[in-house]
Amino acid sequence: MRTRPLKVALLGCGVVGSEVARIMTTHADDLAARIGAPVELAGVAVRRPSKAREGIDPALVTTDATALVKRGDLDVVVEVIGGIEPARTLITTAFEHGASVVSANKALLAQDGAALHAAAEQNGRDLYYEAAVAGAIPLIRPLRESLAGDKVNRVLGIVNGTTNFILDKMDSTGAGYQEALDEATALGYAEADPTADVEGFDAAAKAAILAGIAFHTRVRLDDVYREGMTEVTAADFASAKEMGCTIKLLAICERAADGASVTARVHPAMIPLSHPLASVRGAYNAVFVESEAAGQLMFYGPGAGGAPTASAVLGDLVAVCRNRLSGATGPGESAYAALRVSPMGDVVTRYHISLDVADKPGVLAQVATVFAEHGVSIDTVRQQGKDGEASLVVVTHRASDAALNGTVEALRKLDTVRGVASIMRVEGE
Amino acid sequence: MRTRPLKVALLGCGVVGSEVARIMTTHADDLAARIGAPVELAGVAVRRPSKAREGIDPALVTTDATALVKRGDLDVVVEVIGGIEPARTLITTAFEHGASVVSANKALLAQDGAALHAAAEQNGRDLYYEAAVAGAIPLIRPLRESLAGDKVNRVLGIVNGTTNFILDKMDSTGAGYQEALDEATALGYAEADPTADVEGFDAAAKAAILAGIAFHTRVRLDDVYREGMTEVTAADFASAKEMGCTIKLLAICERAADGASVTARVHPAMIPLSHPLASVRGAYNAVFVESEAAGQLMFYGPGAGGAPTASAVLGDLVAVCRNRLSGATGPGESAYAALRVSPMGDVVTRYHISLDVADKPGVLAQVATVFAEHGVSIDTVRQQGKDGEASLVVVTHRASDAALNGTVEALRKLDTVRGVASIMRVEGE
Ligand SMILES: NC(=O)c1ccc[n+]([C@@H]2O[C@H](COP(=O)([O-])OP(=O)(O)OC[C@H]3O[C@@H](n4cnc5c(N)ncnc54)[C@H](OP(=O)(O)O)[C@@H]3O)[C@@H](O)[C@H]2O)c1
Ligand SMILES: NC(=O)c1ccc[n+]([C@@H]2O[C@H](COP(=O)([O-])OP(=O)(O)OC[C@H]3O[C@@H](n4cnc5c(N)ncnc54)[C@H](OP(=O)(O)O)[C@@H]3O)[C@@H](O)[C@H]2O)c1
Repeated sequence: MRTRPLKVALLGCGVVGSEVARIMTTHADDLAARIGAPVELAGVAVRRPSKAREGIDPALVTTDATALVKRGDLDVVVEVIGGIEPARTLITTAFEHGASVVSANKALLAQDGAALHAAAEQNGRDLYYEAAVAGAIPLIRPLRESLAGDKVNRVLGIVNGTTNFILDKMDSTGAGYQEALDEATALGYAEADPTADVEGFDAAAKAAILAGIAFHTRVRLDDVYREGMTEVTAADFASAKEMGCTIKLLAICERAADGASVTARVHPAMIPLSHPLASVRGAYNAVFVESEAAGQLMFYGPGAGGAPTASAVLGDLVAVCRNRLSGATGPGESAYAALRVSPMGDVVTRYHISLDVADKPGVLAQVATVFAEHGVSIDTVRQQGKDGEASLVVVTHRASDAALNGTVEALRKLDTVRGVASIMRVEGE
Repeated sequence: MRTRPLKVALLGCGVVGSEVARIMTTHADDLAARIGAPVELAGVAVRRPSKAREGIDPALVTTDATALVKRGDLDVVVEVIGGIEPARTLITTAFEHGASVVSANKALLAQDGAALHAAAEQNGRDLYYEAAVAGAIPLIRPLRESLAGDKVNRVLGIVNGTTNFILDKMDSTGAGYQEALDEATALGYAEADPTADVEGFDAAAKAAILAGIAFHTRVRLDDVYREGMTEVTAADFASAKEMGCTIKLLAICERAADGASVTARVHPAMIPLSHPLASVRGAYNAVFVESEAAGQLMFYGPGAGGAPTASAVLGDLVAVCRNRLSGATGPGESAYAALRVSPMGDVVTRYHISLDVADKPGVLAQVATVFAEHGVSIDTVRQQGKDGEASLVVVTHRASDAALNGTVEALRKLDTVRGVASIMRVEGE
């Protein structure tokens, strides 16, 4: 074993970074044995230098992250600051100064992954980011390496723990969105500003990363259709239950049947209780991967949290360090397939639509005609009367999002339709 | 991209090998793009040269596997013959002649993994075998690479599809073992000689491989405690149901609480219906991995079959080819921890014991005394009378296998105990 240590700088020492530092210290011998050389924490960049940080030598702490990544003697830079800047510039600078990079930053990777991969490649360095998607769950590596000889057709999963916690609460207690969110916040599962989670931005970033890797093509964050879960109601859960379903916020990346284009989207959807994703509780994550030869695989585990995320970061750190020692680099960006990313209108799935309608004869026939005119075939209709008003619950067969939207627009124009109470996609069947 | 192809020899062209060859041909462009060079099928060794093999150039087919691996111009040898010899000698010879090796051979890897890894290392070549455990499910790579910065404490899973199919049938239909086995055989899920599967040899080989990788230590096949599932009865399933459990053949690799030793075992066990492994149907496999930082991860998918297994083989092939191009090798054997493998007697778990006893007062007290004398604490007892005879069903708290065996031996000596109808471990709680 080499005795000269590999030098690692830590950018950020918060929830994730502090766990990375802790494990690097407490498990130093194991890491050294697995890498083939010791690793040394060469510096820790933070915002607040005076904050007490257990187990970290204060002499290593700096607020000058730029100077740290420019030292020139670093083997690996671990970026766990988060956000776009200064993380992006720091990573690029790290590559220019000869370091490889491990990051947990989904927002940055989803937005600038291509440029960062290019910077890594130009400098002959590695960019690894297993922790950016689904925390501790090995997902990027299996997609990028284990399935490198297969053709992935679909990735479907729960990749945001905060929203899964909220939806799980709503499902199990009948609580409304706000009440469940408040509990998630109180328990530390939701941040003070939960926008990134509940509006689906976080899941959309992960979907962009996953789709890119799974399909060997570039998928930009803007390419991902995104619908948050703030409008999911207790009534939606009641409808879901009647159908033997629950509601999950799903990230879905699919290859079109013709193989020439892909789609990526994030939205709440009903899934059957018999589907394994339906029983993913609390803040856990789970992702299904469907590929041509392997068939259906599922990966399940803690999607966030300091220690789980640090586990993923350290797995990457070991890999990147091994590569440094052997003078090689791991797989870089693979975007050779250059597939078209189709708009949401092209996505084909099933829908659950609740309509408030006038309770009089002929309404069902009118509504059914509208569906038929738009080529959306109906699977089941349930009619419920309530004092002169009635509700119609329609579940469709598979239809394109565009056709469904056309249908809904036309339904709204019917004067027997008082309103469209909810539209939800039905997945996982 | 390099245009000179990498040369791959295929040893064996049966269920798995024919799928490997098919995908190498039909997905040649994708493989080339992902590897960075085309791959060429340089030869196919089989036993029966005259058998028609769709899509394979007859000029490539040979019965002289030894001459094939000695060619000296091969980059990778894919061994999908199975069994110990000639596979072992062919792999060693392949290394000596400069090739890296991808294998799906759990029997060989479990028996001779250390020697084969040493041969690979001596020759500066790779030995990859993702397909040897749990077919298509990425498991070896996640354990070896994704969790390389973490400390795995437990691996628990269903790693044999044949026995899971049989047990699932018994559970869902109430069939006995033989009837369920016959159905598995008729449907092609069990081989004509099912011994390796039903006696747990196949799962034990996988447990040895998994334990070795998970704990960074050498675990020999002989170190794995093995109990088959041929004696599981419909009555056992009925008892399991009463406890809210089902029965699965589990492979369990554990680190002892003191961290200094490990155990590996394969046996049927009751697990609660609420445990995710309980709902693993048919020939599917699923494996839980518990580690210090990541917590509980689960990997699920098809554990066998030509195409799924080929997916894993091809993932390895891509990795090994990339390593060839970069002049590096991937992670080799990691056995630095050199932990003691404890015998089965040290394993601590819970037990479900059915006793046939005389239906008279004082029997329960006698039985309870025997448990207490051996330090095995009882969780619940259920007593059922049936015409002068009675049965006692005891579920224990956690106790060592040695203590349980001592208890059972003493129970058999009681003249009020007519017989020990069944003993089954209870896991996953
Ligand atoms: N938390 C999770 O469960 C989780 C899961 C998966 C991925 N991630 C990702 O991991 C990354 C880190 O998340 P986190 O939860 O650890 O965040 P965090 O707790 O907010 O920690 C951020 C760290 O960065 C430091 N920092 C902020 N601005 C800085 C600057 N300009 N220069 C130097 N240091 C700066 C902070 O310093 P101070 O300590 O002085 O404030 C803090 O140590 C993010 O990309 C996140 O998306 C997190
Ligand atoms: N089948 C699965 O689902 C599965 C799953 C995971 C792992 N595996 C592993 O994959 C390996 C292959 O399994 P399989 O199911 O593909 O076996 P298989 O269908 O029996 O195929 C074995 C192949 O090896 C050839 N062969 C046998 N002896 C040979 C010799 N002395 N020299 C050259 N070729 C020889 C056979 O030739 P002929 O074609 O002429 O008979 C046949 O093509 C085994 O290690 C198995 O444990 C299999």
